[in-house]
Amino acid sequence: MTKTPVRLPVKDRFHLPEGMIYLDGNSLGPLPRGVDEALRTAAVDQWGAHLIKGWNVDGWMAQPARVGDKIAALIGAPAGCVTMGDTLSIKVYQALAAGLNLNPDRKVILTDSGNFPSDIYMAEGLIKHLGQGHELRIVAPEDVSDAMTRDVAVAMITQVDYRTGQMHDMQAVSDAGHDAGAVMLWDLAHSAGAVPVNVEASGCAFAVGCSYKYLNGGPGAPAFIYVRPDLIPKIDPALSGWLGHDAPFAFEPSYRPAVGIERMRVGTPPVLQLSALEKALEAWDDVDMQELRLASLELSELFIAQVEARCPDLQLASPRNGAERGSQVSFSHPEGYAIVQALIAQDVIGDFRAPNIMRFGFTPLYLDEADVIRATEILEHVMNDRLWDRPEFKITRRVT
Amino acid sequence: MTKTPVRLPVKDRFHLPEGMIYLDGNSLGPLPRGVDEALRTAAVDQWGAHLIKGWNVDGWMAQPARVGDKIAALIGAPAGCVTMGDTLSIKVYQALAAGLNLNPDRKVILTDSGNFPSDIYMAEGLIKHLGQGHELRIVAPEDVSDAMTRDVAVAMITQVDYRTGQMHDMQAVSDAGHDAGAVMLWDLAHSAGAVPVNVEASGCAFAVGCSYKYLNGGPGAPAFIYVRPDLIPKIDPALSGWLGHDAPFAFEPSYRPAVGIERMRVGTPPVLQLSALEKALEAWDDVDMQELRLASLELSELFIAQVEARCPDLQLASPRNGAERGSQVSFSHPEGYAIVQALIAQDVIGDFRAPNIMRFGFTPLYLDEADVIRATEILEHVMNDRLWDRPEFKITRRVT
Repeated sequence: MTKTPVRLPVKDRFHLPEGMIYLDGNSLGPLPRGVDEALRTAAVDQWGAHLIKGWNVDGWMAQPARVGDKIAALIGAPAGCVTMGDTLSIKVYQALAAGLNLNPDRKVILTDSGNFPSDIYMAEGLIKHLGQGHELRIVAPEDVSDAMTRDVAVAMITQVDYRTGQMHDMQAVSDAGHDAGAVMLWDLAHSAGAVPVNVEASGCAFAVGCSYKYLNGGPGAPAFIYVRPDLIPKIDPALSGWLGHDAPFAFEPSYRPAVGIERMRVGTPPVLQLSALEKALEAWDDVDMQELRLASLELSELFIAQVEARCPDLQLASPRNGAERGSQVSFSHPEGYAIVQALIAQDVIGDFRAPNIMRFGFTPLYLDEADVIRATEILEHVMNDRLWDRPEFKITRRVT
Repeated sequence: MTKTPVRLPVKDRFHLPEGMIYLDGNSLGPLPRGVDEALRTAAVDQWGAHLIKGWNVDGWMAQPARVGDKIAALIGAPAGCVTMGDTLSIKVYQALAAGLNLNPDRKVILTDSGNFPSDIYMAEGLIKHLGQGHELRIVAPEDVSDAMTRDVAVAMITQVDYRTGQMHDMQAVSDAGHDAGAVMLWDLAHSAGAVPVNVEASGCAFAVGCSYKYLNGGPGAPAFIYVRPDLIPKIDPALSGWLGHDAPFAFEPSYRPAVGIERMRVGTPPVLQLSALEKALEAWDDVDMQELRLASLELSELFIAQVEARCPDLQLASPRNGAERGSQVSFSHPEGYAIVQALIAQDVIGDFRAPNIMRFGFTPLYLDEADVIRATEILEHVMNDRLWDRPEFKITRRVT
C-alpha cells in the first residue's frame, strides 16, 4: 500500500509511559491528560470546598446525564437517552429484566458463546431468582441470526468478542432479532470508542457498555445504558433506586419512575469516577469515528502482516477480514500466557485470555505505525530467542 | 455539667473551609487530609504508570476486601465478612434477594416507615419483578419488634432514621426478629462511624451501608455489605457478576460463586473511589468508638439545650433521650427549608428534609463545643432577625 496512512493527531492527549507500547486499551485505556487535575478539582475545589453543596453548585447530580450525552454522541444515540452509573454487569441486569418485561409471553434469553462471561452470569442469576421458567439459550456466534426464533424474548449480544475481536454486524443481527419479535440488547463494551456504532439506526431497545476500555475513563469507571426513546416510558425498573425516582428528594413513600432515562439510575452517582471520565472524554473532541476506524484497520492489518511474516508459530485467532473485526487482533499459541508475560517484560503490553489467546488492542488515538512495527520486532525477538521459556513467565496466576 | 468534655484530637485530619461550621456529615462527610494525594497516586502513579498492570501491582483487585476489613472493624464485624462496591441501593437489593431465598416459605419483607425511601423502593422493585406474591409490610418504627411475626421472611431495618435520628436498639430488634425466624437485614448508613455497632453480636444475617456520610469517603463512595460468616456459603447471589465468581479470570461458561464474601461482588471495582475511601478511613486510626459516642452525645445535648434556650419556635424532632438517638439532631419548623437556607448563607451547614425537618449532624471527629455554640448563636440570629424570611431562601428546589 502506498497511500498515506490515516493519522489522528491526538496522541499528546494521553500520558503514556516512556518506552511502553500499550496494546491493551481494549482492557483499560491509558490516563488522558487533564484527568489528574480534574480529580483534584473534584476532590479539593468541589468536595473539599463546597461539601454537600457540591451536589448543586458543582453539577454533580446532573453529571450522569451530561456524561451520558457525551457517550451517546460516540455510539450514534440521540441526546437524553444514555445515563451513567454502576457497573456493566448491573446495567446488563437492568436491561435484561426490563427486556423480559417488554416481552412477557416469551421465555428465552438468547446469547452466544462469545459473549463476555459476566453477561451470561448475570442472566443466569436473573433467571434463577425470577423462578419463572426462563431459559438461557447459548448458540455459536455465527448462528445468532438464525437462532432468532419467535420464542426469543431478549437477544443479549456483545458486538465484539472479547477474545477474538470477532464483530457482529449490529444492523443485520438487530434486523433478524426484530423480525422475530425479540428485544435487542447490545453490549458495546468493546465497541464504544473502538468502531463506529449507530445505536439509533439499529433500532435496538437497549445498549450497555463500560467506559474504562476504549473510552479511557480509568479503572472502575462507571457503565452506560441506552434505552430507545419510545421505550423509556414503558420500562418498569427492577433496580428501582431513589435516583431513578421522578422526585428523589421528595422522599415519597413509593417508587415512581422518572420520566426520562433517569429511571435507569439507581443510587448515588460515583462523582469522583465520573469527573475522571468526563474529562477523559474530551480526548474525543474532533475525532471522527470513520477516520478512527480506517486508522484502526490499517494498524491492525499492519500488525497481522508483520506478525505472520515474523512469527510463523503464531496463529491468527481473529477474523482476517477487517470488516468482521473490532479494534483488537488476537493470536493463539499453546504458550500464549508465557509469551504475553515475556512481551510485558519488554514493555509491550498485551494480555492473555484462557486457554491460549493473546490479545492486542489497537486504537489510533495513541498508537501509530512505528509502535506497531516496534511491537512486532519485539514479539519476533521473544519468539526467536524463546524469551518466554523462563519459569517466571509460566506462573499461571493472573488477574487481568 | 462540670466534667471535662470528651475531645477527639483528630480535627486536623480534615480539610474544613475556613469559617464554615459543617453540621451535615450525616449527608456527606468532609474531605480528609491526604485523600487528594491518594487520588493523585491512584491516577498518576498507578493507572498512568502501570495501566492494566495496576490490577496486580497496585493491589486494585484486593481493594474491596482490604477496605471492607477496615469498615468491618468499625461496625463490629470480623475480618473477611465485608466487601465493597456498587451503591447502597444495590447492596440492599442483593441482601433482600438473598434473604428471601434463605426463608423461602415466607412472603413478607418487613420494614418501617422511617426507613430511607430507596430501601423501600428497591424492595418494591424486587417484589414486582419476582412476581412471587411477596408483600412489603411497612409499620411504624416503634412497632417493629412487635411486628416480627412468623410470616416475616426478611426484616429490613435502617438503624437510624434519616429524618429524626431516632435509633433502633439493634440487639433488641434483632433478637425479636430472630425469635420469629426472620432474616435480619440492617442498613447502617447513619450508624457506621456515627455510633458503636456490633454487627456480630446482633447475629444479623446482613448489614449494608454507604461510606460517604460518617465514613467520609467522598461523593459517590461505594457501599459495603456484611454477611454473617456461616451464611456466606448459603448465599446464591441474584446479582451474579464475574467478580463474584470463584475464578473470575478463568472465564468459565457458568456462574460459580466465590467461596467467601467475594460472592457479593458484582462488577469491576471503582478503583478511584475506593482509593479515596481507603485513605479517608485512616482518619479513624486510634479513634475509640465508645469515646466518639460520648463526645457525640455531649455535642448533641449541648446543641439541644442551646437551641431550646435560644430559639423557642423550633420543635425538637429527635428523641430527647440520647440513647435513642444516632449522631444527628433534628428540629422542625414550618419554615424549616428557608431557615436552613439562611443558615447556609451564614456558613452553618445543615440540611432539610420534607416536610419540615432541619437536620444537624454531630461528629466529634471534626466538631467541638465552640462550633456547636457558634452554630446556635447564628441560628438564634437567623430566627430572631427573621433572616430566613427572604424570597431567595424560599425557592423549594433542592437537590440534597
